[in-house]
Amino acid sequence: MEVCALPEPLVRMQYGTEPCEKNVLALTVVTAAGDIIHVGSKARKSSAGYYLARLFVGSEGTLGVITEITLKLYPLPEAISAATCHFPSVQDAVRAVISIIQYGIPVARVELVDESAIAAINQYDKLTLKEVPTLFFEFHGSTLGVQEQAEIAQQICLEQHGDGFEWSAHPEDRTKLWQARHNAYFACLQRQAGSRILNTDICVPISKLAQCIDHAAGHLKSSRLKSALLGHVGDGNFHALISIDPSSPEDMADAERLNALIVKDGLRAGGTCTGEHGVGRHKIQFMKQEHDLGALEIMRVIKNALDLENVLNPGKVLLI
Amino acid sequence: MEVCALPEPLVRMQYGTEPCEKNVLALTVVTAAGDIIHVGSKARKSSAGYYLARLFVGSEGTLGVITEITLKLYPLPEAISAATCHFPSVQDAVRAVISIIQYGIPVARVELVDESAIAAINQYDKLTLKEVPTLFFEFHGSTLGVQEQAEIAQQICLEQHGDGFEWSAHPEDRTKLWQARHNAYFACLQRQAGSRILNTDICVPISKLAQCIDHAAGHLKSSRLKSALLGHVGDGNFHALISIDPSSPEDMADAERLNALIVKDGLRAGGTCTGEHGVGRHKIQFMKQEHDLGALEIMRVIKNALDLENVLNPGKVLLI
Repeated sequence: MEVCALPEPLVRMQYGTEPCEKNVLALTVVTAAGDIIHVGSKARKSSAGYYLARLFVGSEGTLGVITEITLKLYPLPEAISAATCHFPSVQDAVRAVISIIQYGIPVARVELVDESAIAAINQYDKLTLKEVPTLFFEFHGSTLGVQEQAEIAQQICLEQHGDGFEWSAHPEDRTKLWQARHNAYFACLQRQAGSRILNTDICVPISKLAQCIDHAAGHLKSSRLKSALLGHVGDGNFHALISIDPSSPEDMADAERLNALIVKDGLRAGGTCTGEHGVGRHKIQFMKQEHDLGALEIMRVIKNALDLENVLNPGKVLLI
Repeated sequence: MEVCALPEPLVRMQYGTEPCEKNVLALTVVTAAGDIIHVGSKARKSSAGYYLARLFVGSEGTLGVITEITLKLYPLPEAISAATCHFPSVQDAVRAVISIIQYGIPVARVELVDESAIAAINQYDKLTLKEVPTLFFEFHGSTLGVQEQAEIAQQICLEQHGDGFEWSAHPEDRTKLWQARHNAYFACLQRQAGSRILNTDICVPISKLAQCIDHAAGHLKSSRLKSALLGHVGDGNFHALISIDPSSPEDMADAERLNALIVKDGLRAGGTCTGEHGVGRHKIQFMKQEHDLGALEIMRVIKNALDLENVLNPGKVLLI
């Protein structure tokens, strides 16, 4: 959990479908010794030796400093459709997403925005969106394909008590449908003068997502701090945005307590203490609960072997 | 390059679309010290510490022995269509695949089988397939979607001089269309009594695939050894199956020479010396050409740190 007043990081460019690391083909890395090394190639797959690219990606600068990245590119889809749908509860919304994924629909993006975030967006954008848990979808494919995907998603949403399903394949309408989601972070940041956001995320097995979101929402609602939930629900990953006055130790303590409650519940559910944000300093305390001691020891051995003098981003990720 | 009389390994269960490692969520691993460790979780993504699962996968048992694997599961698609198409040359076939991918069609599988392999299949299965380079496709999606994908692929194949495009969404017909591809390995193994297959693979940037296959095909044709080319062309990955008499040092030497020519051309094209098969002992010699010295040194440091006494599959992957 890092205090963060910036927009969402690049790693989230592909919401709610697949981890982005799979798109990293090659890296240039500066090692602890100051050597410049190249790992990976432009080949889409390789089994020639240890896959160092994936070791450096996500190591938060503790194993080397990444200075160049070669990414895999994708063609633009022939057609895109977008949709939104309201739900009486986050559980209903999550159940709809699970059914849609199980049906085999290749959802390109699916995002959950809770009622609190929608209220903040209404205030920020001067909109009158229904203040209930809302799903935002995007489908990629052929012209017929994206229509069909949207229509099947609509049927499934209705079965899970969704209402007000709207969809469009026209660029202007798609942008309008997704605008609320794109502004969610800034809307939450703006609703309290001088506030900052403590933004924490966990990722859990999708079968446990509804119960974990429910647990998190319960604690957030019972807190005096303003908060919102945003979910990359196709991945089992969700974010709690907690508004704090950065000069208030009480706010910080309360936000930390909420963070710990959410993370520990995610770990009990077999998940991870962070899906996207990383460990930094604030989540080091949860590493022991998430990983078994042997795995943590392997991480320490690798860190020590590659950075003997602990000069690379010291104090982050691992307690050495 | 390993002498191999076995069917194709499990890692190739998902032909020609994406590397399979992305489907590994968690592992149980026995370390060099004999400790049993668990890495990863059932969460679909995590940024909590170093991603050890991807380090162990593909390390060929040199960093630990994998004893349990947790895989990501996918729903069966609503509909599947399969197609085959003949081409006057492998270049035309590869160009068709590149155009189809660039068009944005989410091809589930696409395989190239060259004329030599088709001849072997005809002999093995008593078929009368046209002995020319042939593409085998599979498309996943909705009923309408798979029809549309097959039809667009057909148009693109025709533009690239393909002919005899056949497609079907019926299970029996699909199986029949793909039967030749599934039997290719055994057909090549059977065409020379007592022979074994030296099966080498490389993976190159897709933009270089046609020229690398052309280069490989030229050398294979000019050899006295029987051979065939099979390509997971959607990935830029292809395999050369070279028939040898395992008791003949001349056959072994010739096969090694062909392997070296194919691999070195792939490396010149910015590719990897092995896309799927791994390094083992035979491809250690190419590691220096593929990786820069700094990257190889990082691999060695990791190997030494995790297996100080070099007890885990010694002599494989790296020259320690």
